[in-house]
Amino acid sequence: MIVFINDRFIDEKEASIGISDLSVQRGFGIFDFFRTYRYVPLFLDDYLDRFFNSATLLSLQPRHTREELKTIIYEMIDRNQIETSGFKLILTGGYSQDGFEPGTPNFIMTQQPVEISSEEKFEKGIRIILHEYLRDVPEVKSINYLMAIYLQNRLVEQKADDVLYHQNGEVLEFPRSNVFIVTKEGAVVTPGKNVLHGITRKKVLHIAGRNYKAEERTVTLEDLKNASEVFLTSSTKRLLPVLEIDDVIVGNGKPGKITRELYTAFKQLEEEYYKHEKLPLKDA
Amino acid sequence: MIVFINDRFIDEKEASIGISDLSVQRGFGIFDFFRTYRYVPLFLDDYLDRFFNSATLLSLQPRHTREELKTIIYEMIDRNQIETSGFKLILTGGYSQDGFEPGTPNFIMTQQPVEISSEEKFEKGIRIILHEYLRDVPEVKSINYLMAIYLQNRLVEQKADDVLYHQNGEVLEFPRSNVFIVTKEGAVVTPGKNVLHGITRKKVLHIAGRNYKAEERTVTLEDLKNASEVFLTSSTKRLLPVLEIDDVIVGNGKPGKITRELYTAFKQLEEEYYKHEKLPLKDA
Repeated sequence: MIVFINDRFIDEKEASIGISDLSVQRGFGIFDFFRTYRYVPLFLDDYLDRFFNSATLLSLQPRHTREELKTIIYEMIDRNQIETSGFKLILTGGYSQDGFEPGTPNFIMTQQPVEISSEEKFEKGIRIILHEYLRDVPEVKSINYLMAIYLQNRLVEQKADDVLYHQNGEVLEFPRSNVFIVTKEGAVVTPGKNVLHGITRKKVLHIAGRNYKAEERTVTLEDLKNASEVFLTSSTKRLLPVLEIDDVIVGNGKPGKITRELYTAFKQLEEEYYKHEKLPLKDA
Repeated sequence: MIVFINDRFIDEKEASIGISDLSVQRGFGIFDFFRTYRYVPLFLDDYLDRFFNSATLLSLQPRHTREELKTIIYEMIDRNQIETSGFKLILTGGYSQDGFEPGTPNFIMTQQPVEISSEEKFEKGIRIILHEYLRDVPEVKSINYLMAIYLQNRLVEQKADDVLYHQNGEVLEFPRSNVFIVTKEGAVVTPGKNVLHGITRKKVLHIAGRNYKAEERTVTLEDLKNASEVFLTSSTKRLLPVLEIDDVIVGNGKPGKITRELYTAFKQLEEEYYKHEKLPLKDA
């Protein structure tokens, strides 16, 4: 596979970064991740918006403009020829003189084949546990996953699929996904503050708003317990029903009606985006 | 300068790591840092204890035994010939297949000239601000300094030298140093839980115990406000008086008597350690 570092394409086997980079020295950097659907990068502008926003919030100067990034992304799609892939864009704190002060950021872009969560997986749903934790500067998609990786052993022990963070009684997010609840009154709700604003989250909020009351607001642990449906959203998982939380069954223990509707509608949205976007590609 | 990566010495200009390393991908790794005094690594066994403990807590398998590490450290001292230096040992999550699951850890060791905080700096003391934050898995010396680097802009704005973390009314630690208070009753106290157990902290507790009541226990923000002396400890700063906290003067605004005594005693301890350790080096 070909990757891109700073200003050139390079074979991933040869792709490296100097050890004084602040990602290695201090875990300091931001990233973003999106996938391609039949060679089309889905919702690309939304992801690039977030990438630039994360960089701004950590005072990292991006090495490329939006248009330059798009050119590089399409060239990589052309070179690697992976139909369904995950793109990762990392912007680090750069080479640091003293191992603490950021330098000129280094930029790394990789493309890998990615498996999208299947319909079988949707039907099966997932089992989660809770953990009290607030991500550092949560509105930034930073590379800091210390807690997430640290908790992997506990997930294995407790035979859980994922862990949901909360703090001071407020439900927040999963390490790599957002959470939604459907209330008994049929409102579709996701936490509004202290979370990463996921792109799938944004699309699902939009879709849900067509037929339901869709809200970004505080979700308490009590709200979570009383929810009739709970699901997560992520770029590679789309929507996944949460069927068990700390050994307590959610609803009737099966994917809920509204979750299923939104899942179907989200896949349609992907299809529409693809149809709209592939035209300029064909012309090119 | 010569650095060491995994199993060999290499010039630092050529020292790099593959981009799939979990430090780059997920900011996942541990490190430790100690300094040399006239070519002698101070309190080396204490630092290596902590290095191995951090690795264990994050389930990272060290690539070298304690004895192997010592051999590499002394060879590096011999090669680089830096009288007063800082050694940094980093153990990362290694090359990850999926960008999330740890692989075989990569080990990086560097040695750089380091400036030790001067007596002038001690007399001048420092000005600090407070910030509510608990480090992830605080007993681990991880490479995660996202919050610390994020807060640098605020330090500049507020003309402060450092930031002291606290949570739920309990004083914790600085991003790279521990905190001590001297109570009005003359006890020397440092927070016991949810902090990194610094090596200078450990030595100062020991020294303080000779003449004072020395305690590891909860320090509240109230205790901090009422303290007659406040100081920090770190490997490169030894002890540094904190003379102003969020614009409030500590004590009489000058380095306190007990802080000064402990500072002098700590430098004596360094001298004693050096004298004791240099003998086997000379024999070698």
